[in-house]
Amino acid sequence: MEGDFCLSPIHPVILCGGSGKRLWPVSRKAVPKPFLPLVGEETLFRQAVRRVAGDDRFAAPLVVAGAEHADLIMEQLGDTPDARLVIEPAARNTAPAIALAAALLPEDAIMLVCPSDHHIADNTAFLAAALAAAALARDDYLVSFGITANRPETGYGYLQRGEPLAGGFTIRRFVEKPDLALAKEYLESGDYSWNGGIFAFRTGQLLAELAAHRPDMARLVAQAVAEGRSDGMRFHPAADPFNAITDESIDYAVMEQTTRAAMVPTDMGWSDIGTWAALADALAYAPVDTSDARGNVARGGPVDLADCSRVLAITDGPRISAVGLSDVCIIVSGTEVLVTTREGAQAVGNLPGAANQ
Amino acid sequence: MEGDFCLSPIHPVILCGGSGKRLWPVSRKAVPKPFLPLVGEETLFRQAVRRVAGDDRFAAPLVVAGAEHADLIMEQLGDTPDARLVIEPAARNTAPAIALAAALLPEDAIMLVCPSDHHIADNTAFLAAALAAAALARDDYLVSFGITANRPETGYGYLQRGEPLAGGFTIRRFVEKPDLALAKEYLESGDYSWNGGIFAFRTGQLLAELAAHRPDMARLVAQAVAEGRSDGMRFHPAADPFNAITDESIDYAVMEQTTRAAMVPTDMGWSDIGTWAALADALAYAPVDTSDARGNVARGGPVDLADCSRVLAITDGPRISAVGLSDVCIIVSGTEVLVTTREGAQAVGNLPGAANQ
Repeated sequence: MEGDFCLSPIHPVILCGGSGKRLWPVSRKAVPKPFLPLVGEETLFRQAVRRVAGDDRFAAPLVVAGAEHADLIMEQLGDTPDARLVIEPAARNTAPAIALAAALLPEDAIMLVCPSDHHIADNTAFLAAALAAAALARDDYLVSFGITANRPETGYGYLQRGEPLAGGFTIRRFVEKPDLALAKEYLESGDYSWNGGIFAFRTGQLLAELAAHRPDMARLVAQAVAEGRSDGMRFHPAADPFNAITDESIDYAVMEQTTRAAMVPTDMGWSDIGTWAALADALAYAPVDTSDARGNVARGGPVDLADCSRVLAITDGPRISAVGLSDVCIIVSGTEVLVTTREGAQAVGNLPGAANQ
Repeated sequence: MEGDFCLSPIHPVILCGGSGKRLWPVSRKAVPKPFLPLVGEETLFRQAVRRVAGDDRFAAPLVVAGAEHADLIMEQLGDTPDARLVIEPAARNTAPAIALAAALLPEDAIMLVCPSDHHIADNTAFLAAALAAAALARDDYLVSFGITANRPETGYGYLQRGEPLAGGFTIRRFVEKPDLALAKEYLESGDYSWNGGIFAFRTGQLLAELAAHRPDMARLVAQAVAEGRSDGMRFHPAADPFNAITDESIDYAVMEQTTRAAMVPTDMGWSDIGTWAALADALAYAPVDTSDARGNVARGGPVDLADCSRVLAITDGPRISAVGLSDVCIIVSGTEVLVTTREGAQAVGNLPGAANQ
């Protein structure tokens, strides 16, 4: 760590755009996934903030979110010093959100983009990866965290590594969610990591790449910032230019276009908690294992399981009793009762209850 | 039907002893299974009463039940003319309950013993079987309804038929709940019927057989009746002698002991609604089929099923949403949520919620 003190701090950019529809009925429009204590006592958002707090290698966080969650965020930020909040006039996916943050930071700032709705069990591993990614970003690489795959997951995108760099690799190829056969191949090859959606950039480099590959988006973001207004710790980009932006992810808009994509491999107990099945896994393998000998996990009110294995049971009050089930998630929240298989968990967001909020 | 008018009417004896623990959390101690509208709009008890009402081949019903359900029964009997209620001082299984009723009826009365917690879809078939059973009972056979088996059910006892009689057969053998291999053998042989727990006896014959095979029980029942007291339409047997009786089923105490056991075969859409899985079947094959094309059945409040088959979903309010499930029962009642496989349904009565009421 010698010499670290003379580097400028890393600017955490915390994205709060995820709706977490697949975690309905607990995650709802009014209080979506980032703001719920899904793993442990703290919300995922609080965990994301605290992961980079109280460490002088990091600057104060810049949070990007929709207006409907601004109050929740202010409350959950608590006394985080110097935190700033950028209010997106509309949800336009990650590329515009990240570009907004970049435009508000100094040109030579190193930004670390962290989704607020993921879980990371091993903060030390996260920190090591963040420092490695920041070092590559200082050399104008656009850096993605490559999460060590430990199972043939079909729910994530993958990064194929290329040539070695200091602390990482170039990215040879981005691949979309594979089918099971392909996922098994990726796992065996050892060449592929999960695309964790965590990035490090030098802001000037990111904006230059955006201008090269998505000139309209770059222009509209610059205009939204130039015409925006500050209000205490909040910044409101101008709505008209921002709303005119086409919805796009940072992977599509920039990472897959640039010749300077890099990845830092990390095994940090990461999960996107994308579904109830993913949450079950995150809880079962949490540092404090909350599962029983058959892999069942119970949270909230009373739960009685008989002859069950790998069942996730979460209730905000009513007792859940279950018999003979395997690989099923049972979620009771308010006036909603959800029961889904692990495979079905991907489709929860399409249920009438989740879709018509 | 010529000549029927000169036969004395059949006396329905309706037993209300079943606790229906396996149908928890809907069936509870305070309002157990017979008094719930599990199939159709009427409660199973009301269906049992109405099945033999308004037909002059049947006398008024004699209901045998515990004191804790007397008020429920009075309410559900409504204006059933001349109904009588025998209050068991304690639950002692079916033999003592049936003997009480026999002791309160004329010696030559034909009694038709009907559990109040079964479902019968085809009342015409029931009536035909009842008349056939009554005719055999008049010849001093002890008659059991033999339900046509249509699947290798392991949850029921079986009757093996013997020699043909008018409208029925002698019973060669009673068999306990078989394993699946044996149940398949029984089904293929065509020689076996389910023991439906419905009986016809001449009261004098039943009491004579009881005196022969269970003299203590016969004596204590006679004493409980002799020392009992009437109170309007209710009869209270004396508690001391009745409580001293050893708990025993009519099958063990009499049917398996007598040389005059007979059965009438019948295919009347019968189910003991013993478990949530059995209820699912009864509902799926009810005269008005309430299932969808994949065999799902929903009752009560809102239910959204995605990619589910043979799911039973019952709720008294909260919405049930389910994804990807097969052969599962989801029951929401008050502050209890039960999820069980069809196989697990047999074990619901042992759950803490059901056991510790």
